[in-house]
Amino acid sequence: MKEVVILGAGNVATHLFKAFQASAGAKVLQVYNRSEENLDFFRNQVAVTSNLKEIVAADFYILALSDDAIKEIVPLLPEQHGIVVHTSGAKGISTLSKFENYGVFYPLQSFSKSKEVDFHEIPICLEANSPTVLIRLKELASEISEKIYEVDSDQRKALHVAAVFANNFTNHMYSMAAEICARNGLQFEVLRPLIRETLAKAEVLPPPKAQTGPALRGDSETISAHLELLNKDEQEIYKLITSSIQKLHGKKL
Amino acid sequence: MKEVVILGAGNVATHLFKAFQASAGAKVLQVYNRSEENLDFFRNQVAVTSNLKEIVAADFYILALSDDAIKEIVPLLPEQHGIVVHTSGAKGISTLSKFENYGVFYPLQSFSKSKEVDFHEIPICLEANSPTVLIRLKELASEISEKIYEVDSDQRKALHVAAVFANNFTNHMYSMAAEICARNGLQFEVLRPLIRETLAKAEVLPPPKAQTGPALRGDSETISAHLELLNKDEQEIYKLITSSIQKLHGKKL
Repeated sequence: MKEVVILGAGNVATHLFKAFQASAGAKVLQVYNRSEENLDFFRNQVAVTSNLKEIVAADFYILALSDDAIKEIVPLLPEQHGIVVHTSGAKGISTLSKFENYGVFYPLQSFSKSKEVDFHEIPICLEANSPTVLIRLKELASEISEKIYEVDSDQRKALHVAAVFANNFTNHMYSMAAEICARNGLQFEVLRPLIRETLAKAEVLPPPKAQTGPALRGDSETISAHLELLNKDEQEIYKLITSSIQKLHGKKL
Repeated sequence: MKEVVILGAGNVATHLFKAFQASAGAKVLQVYNRSEENLDFFRNQVAVTSNLKEIVAADFYILALSDDAIKEIVPLLPEQHGIVVHTSGAKGISTLSKFENYGVFYPLQSFSKSKEVDFHEIPICLEANSPTVLIRLKELASEISEKIYEVDSDQRKALHVAAVFANNFTNHMYSMAAEICARNGLQFEVLRPLIRETLAKAEVLPPPKAQTGPALRGDSETISAHLELLNKDEQEIYKLITSSIQKLHGKKL
């Protein structure tokens, strides 16, 4: 049985905890968090502590913490026999170089407290300070996911930016669409089937091949009509993305 | 049986044709297209013509044409007893005011030639020049879809812009993410589960409530790190959308 200590009590920590406890070959022994109160969810299910000196011996120590908290905890955490990893997309592996065996265990997903996720579908991006550690991390990751990737620190940082475009910025496009609907007395609902189809196409085509719309067609009449309906901030974004689509696809108005 | 003539042979025409032919109470009598060769798909299934004088009598005439082609065909199309509609998101209803009974029959979806769609889920936005015509259009639309909305010309234009954000611009965010992946030796595949989750959240939450990421958190350290990995054009888009997210959510760096 692979024994795990989780440091952190936020969304990533909680979802990892549930996934390991549901796995066949891994088990969380203890959850640490700086503040006692955030440990309430875990208290009746597993040993908890808010004292770094009470951390128990385990095979893996997972720092499921914010980037700032990782920076703060590393100097305070005593050297461990097990493998120490963090779950951050943005932090390099060298953040943990004071330990003997260390790595990164980055689940590429946007976690919410209230929403359950199927961990089997979540890509886990691994990096390790040695081939042996990498093998052990792969074994641990395969307890909870079928999608395991080796991704070095530079690649992981790039992936983190790409994820901002694919997730955060996409969601903001939805927000802008919702705002345009709202001020014209339209329900955002009307757009949902279109949004679903956009995703369905991205599942089967490389995104540039799935591109449609007035920017791609070079339809300057429609583009002008659209700009008239937008406020100044929306216009700026509309123009910039339109020109970016046209650059990518080699069109010019 | 509601009898329909479709004018046009592109994606919208083709998908509408299939949906009506599969319906219980509507039937396409004829498909018109200016060029003979694009009629090949329809030829063995229904009467076709490339001569506007040969258009047969029907209850509905659907101009499933590009905005430019609508403009060209309207003066040439003889007055009809049936109801004449176009399927354009961008054109006003008044484009068809030379006819006695007219309206708009706008299916809000991005159609591809190669990809089948379930028309029952596609919102059809209707507008009519009279209450009687509206009732008839609702009857026709309900033959193929369960999602029927009354949307006036101004609203439809706004919806068309909103759709550009929700579909075209979202897809371009995927393209940009794919490009960042490609130049860092990463498969775009890795991002798919995240993209799916972004949509899944948008299905259950208003988009602003589903927003996450460094822009929302005001995490200027991550934002700076991200900008370093982007080229100049990408940086411009990253900065503008980041600042738009912060404006919407009342945060400032």
